[in-house]
This record gives sequence, C-alpha cells and structure tokens, in this order.
Amino acid sequence: MNFDAKMREYIELVNSKLSVYVPQKENLQKSIYEAMRYSLMAGGKRIRPVLAMSVCEMLGGNVEKALPYACALECIHTYSLIHDDLPCMDNDDMRRGKPTCHKAFDEATALLAGDALLNRAFEIMSTYGTDNDCTVEVIKYVSNNSGTEGMIGGQVVDLMCEGDGNVSEETLRYIHRNKTGALISAAAMIGAICGNATDEEKVKILEFSDNLGLAFQIKDDILDFVGDDELLGKPTGSDEENDKTTFVTLMGIEKAEEELQRTTKAAKAALEVFGAENEFLCSLADFLLKRNF
Amino acid sequence: MNFDAKMREYIELVNSKLSVYVPQKENLQKSIYEAMRYSLMAGGKRIRPVLAMSVCEMLGGNVEKALPYACALECIHTYSLIHDDLPCMDNDDMRRGKPTCHKAFDEATALLAGDALLNRAFEIMSTYGTDNDCTVEVIKYVSNNSGTEGMIGGQVVDLMCEGDGNVSEETLRYIHRNKTGALISAAAMIGAICGNATDEEKVKILEFSDNLGLAFQIKDDILDFVGDDELLGKPTGSDEENDKTTFVTLMGIEKAEEELQRTTKAAKAALEVFGAENEFLCSLADFLLKRNF
Repeated sequence: MNFDAKMREYIELVNSKLSVYVPQKENLQKSIYEAMRYSLMAGGKRIRPVLAMSVCEMLGGNVEKALPYACALECIHTYSLIHDDLPCMDNDDMRRGKPTCHKAFDEATALLAGDALLNRAFEIMSTYGTDNDCTVEVIKYVSNNSGTEGMIGGQVVDLMCEGDGNVSEETLRYIHRNKTGALISAAAMIGAICGNATDEEKVKILEFSDNLGLAFQIKDDILDFVGDDELLGKPTGSDEENDKTTFVTLMGIEKAEEELQRTTKAAKAALEVFGAENEFLCSLADFLLKRNF
Repeated sequence: MNFDAKMREYIELVNSKLSVYVPQKENLQKSIYEAMRYSLMAGGKRIRPVLAMSVCEMLGGNVEKALPYACALECIHTYSLIHDDLPCMDNDDMRRGKPTCHKAFDEATALLAGDALLNRAFEIMSTYGTDNDCTVEVIKYVSNNSGTEGMIGGQVVDLMCEGDGNVSEETLRYIHRNKTGALISAAAMIGAICGNATDEEKVKILEFSDNLGLAFQIKDDILDFVGDDELLGKPTGSDEENDKTTFVTLMGIEKAEEELQRTTKAAKAALEVFGAENEFLCSLADFLLKRNF
C-alpha cells in the first residue's frame, strides 16, 4: 500500500464532494455560500472524513456509503473552527495561513456561515445518506458527539479555564477528549456503522479513536510549543502567551513526547484484531505523530 | 372545541417535553445547559410546535408522533433568536421581557448555547423520533428550511438590507418568506409528514402555512409600529428607528392591516378541504391575527 497515494485519493474524494454539497450560488444570499466555502475549502487536513472512510474500508464496507456522512462531519468541524475564532471566543486572526472567516468577511457573516455549516451537515446526511436506518444511527451518534456532552461541552470547559495556567490533568483530559476527541470518535464510528461493525469491533474502533484523538491533541500542543508558524499557518507560542494549560505546560516537552508515543502505540494496538486490513489506519496514526503542521 | 384550553394543553405538552430534552445538569459544563434553558423556557408563544401538532391531529395522526420533531423545531427557533440578538447581528438587549441570552450570560456562552440548541434539535429528532423513515424525511425538510435556502438565507438578505429604508416589496417578501416563513412551513410539514398527508393535502397545508407565515410577519411589523412595549417584552418602534423597511413602512398601516386580513383569510381558505377537522387551525390563524404580543 502506498499511504501517500491512498491519502491523496481520499482527500480528493472529500474535496470534490464537499464542493458539490456546499456549492457556489448566484442568488441573493450568495455571500453566505462564499463564506462557507472560504473556510470549508481552505485546505484542512481532512483527518475526520479520511478516518470515517478508511475505517469503513478496513471493515470491507463501501467507501461511497460513508462519504456523505464523512463530508458532513467536516462541515461540523469547520463550523466549530469559525465560531471558535470569533472575537468573543479565541479572537484569532489567522487560520490555515489565511485570515479567519470573520476577518475575511465580517462577524455576522462568519456567525451565520458557522450556523449554516452545522445545519448543512444534517441536511447532507439526511439527503445523501444511503439508507434511513444507517442515517438515523449516524445522526444520533454525530449529534451527541458534537453537542453539549461532546465537542460543545469541551469548548465550554475550555472557556471556563481560559487564562488559568493551573488546570488539572484530569480537566485537561476532559477538555481534549471532548473538544477534539469527540469528533474523531464520531468519524471512526461513522466508518464502523457504515462498515457494519460488530459490537466487539466497535469497542476496538473506539479504543483506537480515543487514543488517536488524545495523540492528535498532544501533537497540537507540542506543535504550538516548538512548531513553525509558516507551516502551521497560524502563530505558534500562543498557548504559553495566553497562559493556557496544555500537555506541554503540564508535563514538560519530554513527557509530552513520551505520551504522544504511548497513545499512538495504544491506538495501533487496538487495531490488531483487524489483521492486515489495518495497514492504512496504522500508517495514518504514524503520519499524525510525525506531522509538522 | 375550546380553543384556549386546547392551546394550553399543547403548550404544556411542549414545555414539559422541552424540559426533558434540554435538562438541567450538574456537570462541568452545566452553564451551557443553564443558558440554553434560559432562552428556551423564556415563555415563547410556541406557535411552531403547536402548528406541527395540530396539523398532525387535523389529519387524524397521533400528536405524540409529532411531539419530538415539534420540540426540536422550537430549539431551532430559539437558537436563531439567541444568535440574532448578538451584538454582531441585531444587538438587542431585551427579549420576551428579559435580558437577552448574551446579556444574562456572556457572548461566548450565548454563541455556544445557540450552537448547542441547533445541534440538540437534530439529536432530539434522531433519538426520539418514532420511525426512521419519518425521521429522515422530517430532518431533510427541516434542515432545508432552516438553512441557506430557508431561514439563514432570509437572515443574510435581511442583514444586507440593514439601514436601507428603500427595500423593494419583492425583497421584503423574500426576507419574510425565508426568515420567518420557512420555519412555520417546516412546522406545518412536520404535522403533514407525521399525519401521513397525501401529496394533495401537503399542497394545501403549505398554502395554509405560506399565508399564515406572511400574516404572522405583517402582524409583527404592525405590533412594532403600534404595539405596547410591556406586552411585547421588547422596545417597539425599533424598525422605524433603524430605518428598517417593513410592511408598515412600505404600504402604510392601513394597507398592512388589509394585507394581514387577506393573508389570514387565504390561510383559512386553504384548509377548507379538511372540513370540520380544521377548526383549531382556523382559530389559531384568528388568534395570531388578533394577538397584541
């Protein structure tokens, strides 16, 4: 298997579908489509849709079945970034090397573009999902993980801890498990549902995605500490500047690196039951470990 | 039929279910539940859920089937009000006689509470909907009407026209049909889907809801012009102050009153095919015509 080629193939599939699901329009409200596409097509890593599709394929499922749900999840991820960047939240000016949505447009448009992407995610799933039982199961899982007991819950606690450099490791893990981890688990579960995973397989897939989500966030913290502004497309060192508790401030860079290695290894170990079919996902875990952006 | 008693019965059903669907919580992120409930339980008129349930009952359907979708729609309506009131949008301080969500909490919490209510709407429908085919059909219809080709589309064009006292009647009708009308149509369609309406019946129900939605907005414009601040729970005269085009500024108060009568009559006429079963909905149309809040 050529990991890079397969990765590119998945990403192209997602990008071309997203462009269909969130098209340019020439109507009165065309500015909202522009703002949605500005952030959605800004060259994100597409980790979540790739995860959904590759878990589905690992289980012998058809990637086309997972595709609409995978794209919907990317819409949810993008809406959360747009709203997170707003002045009343993190007040960030740059994202992926470009001005954030409210800088490129205005606050009202960015607010509505985020709302519209969240809304559109559910419209995509209900309109393009292949069978209704699968669609309802996916919407239930995704909306739970993106809501107040998932991603939004993590954002709320993150906001409460703002400027508090002394957040406990327990709270930090709570924030990360929800703010970042919940959508990563949702991605893996979309693949599991579309690939008709057994209950035992779902347990393993969630063990994988829990560890992967944690590894992903630890890597983000490390990159903010040691990373390259240009490669990341945003200023680094902002965590330290904002007196933000991260895995690096909490345990030091060396221990954080160790924890990154440990969680990546645990993620891959959870996939052993799937035999050789796990190859792409294990490579994806290594790819995320080594990334510098 | 005792209209007031029936109306009260519907509203109590909605309020008690909403309180179950969006509960108080005692977890780390409990502030978000407080903010969601603050706006959701602030004594809205519950027109949309009442419409959904009563259309379902007019068709001989079971009101319990429509109830989760009806409550979800009220969550969507409430999220749109919270986001509409934010400083970057209408910047309103009062709503339903109480400080708006961002005034009672803060902007970040209000932003997330709105997001959470939109998200929760889809979680409610997918979790509590009775059968999957019905749930997917409803989610598809609702998400379309609350998105960029519905409510959000109306908000975008409304924002574009801000401070423009010379908006054409065509644009004004576009804004109202989408910003207010789309969710009212979605409500009626929830009832139609849950009541197993035929295609011909759906056409009549949409004719009813289109006219009712228009009447509803004209009445809002009239109330902003002549209404009582205390009864409305918000300052009146704001449209004129903001140089906002409304049905009243466009056609004068007398013509607006005539148009209100005409659209209410047209709404009721569309229900004639349903015979005596239409009684509650016709009374509802009259109730909305006569309201002073």
